Amino acid sequence: MSSGAADRYAYLGPAGTFTEAALRAIPAAAGAATVPTADVTAALEAVRRGEVSGAVVPLENSVEGVVPTTVDDLTFGPPLVIAAEVALAVRFGLLVRPGTERARIARVASHPHALAQCRRWIAEQLPGVEVVAVDSTAAAARAVRDQPQDYDAAIAAPVAAEAYGLQVLVEGIGDNEEAWTRFVLARRPGPVGAASGADKTTLSLFMREDHPGALLEILTEFAVRGVNLTRIESRPTKRALGDYYFSIDCEGHLRDARVGETLEGLHRVCADVRFLGSYPRHDGRAPLLRRGVTDADFAQARAWLDRIRARTAD
Amino acid sequence: MSSGAADRYAYLGPAGTFTEAALRAIPAAAGAATVPTADVTAALEAVRRGEVSGAVVPLENSVEGVVPTTVDDLTFGPPLVIAAEVALAVRFGLLVRPGTERARIARVASHPHALAQCRRWIAEQLPGVEVVAVDSTAAAARAVRDQPQDYDAAIAAPVAAEAYGLQVLVEGIGDNEEAWTRFVLARRPGPVGAASGADKTTLSLFMREDHPGALLEILTEFAVRGVNLTRIESRPTKRALGDYYFSIDCEGHLRDARVGETLEGLHRVCADVRFLGSYPRHDGRAPLLRRGVTDADFAQARAWLDRIRARTAD
Amino acid sequence: MSSGAADRYAYLGPAGTFTEAALRAIPAAAGAATVPTADVTAALEAVRRGEVSGAVVPLENSVEGVVPTTVDDLTFGPPLVIAAEVALAVRFGLLVRPGTERARIARVASHPHALAQCRRWIAEQLPGVEVVAVDSTAAAARAVRDQPQDYDAAIAAPVAAEAYGLQVLVEGIGDNEEAWTRFVLARRPGPVGAASGADKTTLSLFMREDHPGALLEILTEFAVRGVNLTRIESRPTKRALGDYYFSIDCEGHLRDARVGETLEGLHRVCADVRFLGSYPRHDGRAPLLRRGVTDADFAQARAWLDRIRARTAD
Amino acid sequence: MSSGAADRYAYLGPAGTFTEAALRAIPAAAGAATVPTADVTAALEAVRRGEVSGAVVPLENSVEGVVPTTVDDLTFGPPLVIAAEVALAVRFGLLVRPGTERARIARVASHPHALAQCRRWIAEQLPGVEVVAVDSTAAAARAVRDQPQDYDAAIAAPVAAEAYGLQVLVEGIGDNEEAWTRFVLARRPGPVGAASGADKTTLSLFMREDHPGALLEILTEFAVRGVNLTRIESRPTKRALGDYYFSIDCEGHLRDARVGETLEGLHRVCADVRFLGSYPRHDGRAPLLRRGVTDADFAQARAWLDRIRARTAD
Repeated sequence: MSSGAADRYAYLGPAGTFTEAALRAIPAAAGAATVPTADVTAALEAVRRGEVSGAVVPLENSVEGVVPTTVDDLTFGPPLVIAAEVALAVRFGLLVRPGTERARIARVASHPHALAQCRRWIAEQLPGVEVVAVDSTAAAARAVRDQPQDYDAAIAAPVAAEAYGLQVLVEGIGDNEEAWTRFVLARRPGPVGAASGADKTTLSLFMREDHPGALLEILTEFAVRGVNLTRIESRPTKRALGDYYFSIDCEGHLRDARVGETLEGLHRVCADVRFLGSYPRHDGRAPLLRRGVTDADFAQARAWLDRIRARTAD
Repeated sequence: MSSGAADRYAYLGPAGTFTEAALRAIPAAAGAATVPTADVTAALEAVRRGEVSGAVVPLENSVEGVVPTTVDDLTFGPPLVIAAEVALAVRFGLLVRPGTERARIARVASHPHALAQCRRWIAEQLPGVEVVAVDSTAAAARAVRDQPQDYDAAIAAPVAAEAYGLQVLVEGIGDNEEAWTRFVLARRPGPVGAASGADKTTLSLFMREDHPGALLEILTEFAVRGVNLTRIESRPTKRALGDYYFSIDCEGHLRDARVGETLEGLHRVCADVRFLGSYPRHDGRAPLLRRGVTDADFAQARAWLDRIRARTAD
Repeated sequence: MSSGAADRYAYLGPAGTFTEAALRAIPAAAGAATVPTADVTAALEAVRRGEVSGAVVPLENSVEGVVPTTVDDLTFGPPLVIAAEVALAVRFGLLVRPGTERARIARVASHPHALAQCRRWIAEQLPGVEVVAVDSTAAAARAVRDQPQDYDAAIAAPVAAEAYGLQVLVEGIGDNEEAWTRFVLARRPGPVGAASGADKTTLSLFMREDHPGALLEILTEFAVRGVNLTRIESRPTKRALGDYYFSIDCEGHLRDARVGETLEGLHRVCADVRFLGSYPRHDGRAPLLRRGVTDADFAQARAWLDRIRARTAD
Repeated sequence: MSSGAADRYAYLGPAGTFTEAALRAIPAAAGAATVPTADVTAALEAVRRGEVSGAVVPLENSVEGVVPTTVDDLTFGPPLVIAAEVALAVRFGLLVRPGTERARIARVASHPHALAQCRRWIAEQLPGVEVVAVDSTAAAARAVRDQPQDYDAAIAAPVAAEAYGLQVLVEGIGDNEEAWTRFVLARRPGPVGAASGADKTTLSLFMREDHPGALLEILTEFAVRGVNLTRIESRPTKRALGDYYFSIDCEGHLRDARVGETLEGLHRVCADVRFLGSYPRHDGRAPLLRRGVTDADFAQARAWLDRIRARTAD
């Protein structure tokens, strides 16, 4: 195919989902050709095979927490790195075929996660209505369009209304007004760009053995160099019950001296460290650094050490 | 109703799911009347309303990690405590109506989590077959029985075959042979029993503010008293993007001196501590304690302190 | 003797030393009868034998650091506790018999520590003068009075001039203007008084074994409860080369909850903990406490723990 | 003088002290010309002025602890570094003029430190004898030789008997059989040699401010890189009461990767770090290293970091 991978991006489809909206919010991908995929794994595999130059997938959301498939695939699959992140407020709407009246709604389709986030509204506003779980919120919208005999309404992103010729009957029906999802752009490993000054780094850490204080040991590697964590989960390795790895986001960039030395420390202490990318924070918020942990501080300390190591008699 | 709550247990239904099998594995509930519910929240609400004496719900599994609804409901809802845990190996089977041939399967139903855990097998063994997400693996089995025109097979727990008059065509189709789910029995808060010597305690911790080293501070409260963590997740509080609480399992029991003092320390350091129960470990494995952290060690130290505080002139 | 021990205090003599001045600065002892002793051990033994109700001895000074005899005697001898401390600026003077001219000074006596603290002044102002070490600065003053043929001048506390009928020829001859000595009042163990809110506690800690991180472990016991150290020395135990104990001063009082729990923690972690007293700080400076470590914070945490331990079904 | 500094060594004199014996035990200095000095400062100043190529001075002993003058002079004076250490058992003898009978001893001279270490023996074996403090144990021996009218015996190192023509009447009179003194060889800063695998490093650390946990912060810099401390003292800076620095010995060598990174960390966290030398341990005991802190571990971690920083697309 002549277009090549460089100008195409995969995303967790179908069209009309929040993930597509996230992709459009990432400058590198905004104007590119897009390829919806059936699931997260398919999107990431397309990147690995070189069919696309990147994939946008959800990493965590405020209701469900981390998206296991994404984190596990990046951790256990062939190397990919996160090159960008974006966070979107998640607003749900009740979508119907134009002209459908609310009183006529008997059957509503949506993805289980969306249903979970609108549980209270559904119970109060649609009592007695049958709720059906389908593969995605966009699939629900499509089903409302294509199977009028089966479904009267879909709970989906308002953007799906356009994509499937539906009408937004009620907007903002999520139980939690502050709901959000964080998406990342995964690419094949390549030269890591410069630090922006407001970055995040994602890691997967495997312990050597499970001894008391092992997690404290790991966190001390971060704390002693002034690196703050923004997310941590112990994730089952799927090898055995009780065998975990740690999925971690921390502030700072692979090229920051404090992050570099932290990574070296982790490499020495852990059985394995998987680097999953350094990228600008979606909110542009620079870390509050304590004294002694800037690149300049590290450079001065190194220069001082070099001097006392090389010192010659006067 | 004459039977009262005392001998009835709710569980995440419908009948024939892994959760029912888990309930049967908990001695207190094994012979009791059971009430399947539509979702985790309904099961827990039934306990709070006093309709049942307990509810069995999944807390985490090896593929998806923590079950967000369970952890968040226990953390943010009216107080319940975990009184027991059980872990079950998760084995999936391909269930069909008796007599259905494999070559005739065109449409398969299951719950999205089960589909995720059998992804590879489906891709290899059922190419071209349409896969449909439904509310639960048991719902899939029931749909195969009740809607032969719509579904040819279900991916579900083998026990669902009995419940719905189906046949297990292939067993052990999960991609991960070691898959497991951990279930807990939630009750209304009551007198906490004695420590068994091989216990686990579940907590939700809210930080005062997000300062570098805050997590390290919290983990030091555990480590300094020799209490080992077995699970940790930073979970969004749903208040604002980047606002987290920590869901934690640690070794030991509320009545262990080292756990009690750790809880006091956490109470002083955290904005809020939610105690979610102390209960015997499903595997009966006693913790490996370092010197100085047994109840006897705590009692001796207390006696010594009392002596030097009370010491009088000779 | 009819007066008994209650109104007599021993001090490191002879009369006219800084230690006597320190004794006079301690309210409890200010107006009491005093007993000079030849050395620190004699003063402390007099307390142990019940001959005096307390002894004032130097614990550390700004030039020499800790006074080994005092710390070791309190640590290894029969139990005594520190009941008060006082810090005195150490000012040295050049004392002569009335009428002696500076040009005539050929031989100067003093204690080696005082000589060390006036080294520079002596070298510059008394070149060619012979310097002789004697047992104490007061002994030097007495020798100047009693042995005019041997000594022309003494370096001693200005107060010694009165005691021995000498004249202060030059004052403030110490090399270090900020020199100070810290004295403590040691008593037999008795009921420990209430906390004043600005206290210090003195401890001697013996490690179980010398493993990497052992000291960090000990200091974490303090830090996790917000107890700040003001002095630490690893002191040889005299058993074997490389076998040490830690002599420590920390902020706070035995009756403060945070200090009490720290002591319990140390008791569990250390091979031995010797409590050497809690007493008001000489400077009355209250500690800057971080959130969560006041007595009220400890009491609330304990009450909360008691509640969740006792919680009964509704 | 034509011989120059290169083959001359200063030591805390006079001849016949333990320090001279220590000097003879250091290979580099064993056969060199020696220069006794009146005190520690004079010995170190002779090195700074280039008059000698090194000076042997006591750093600590098992009874008195650290020798304040040595540590403070190395910390606050113009830079010198410790190039070697040696530890000697300290045995005291009662030295008399040949023919003196024990019953005739009325007056004994010695240095206050030696008197302190023989206190018990003197009290038991020489009751009623007058004890006089002089400048050094060797000065005591000389005084016995030169001032027979003033002194009958000296308490000193047995080696002093030879130097001053005396006789050892009783040997091993110290109260503590295991007494020892640790001496160091100080040189002008020069190229630091290779690590021997069993080294020690001496440092003086100045804190930025005295906040709770500041010492813990410093010790964490050591612990996180697996560097064990063998001695620590908070020493007054002589600036103000309560203003301290930390005098520290740790295992390992400036050229060990773990020590180098620790020094960089300390440089960033402390107001000032004074490096006082890396040198082979007197006992040749190699440190017990935990996993992950050898030079090879550091090199592998660095290579890994370089790889992920440089990684290019395939």
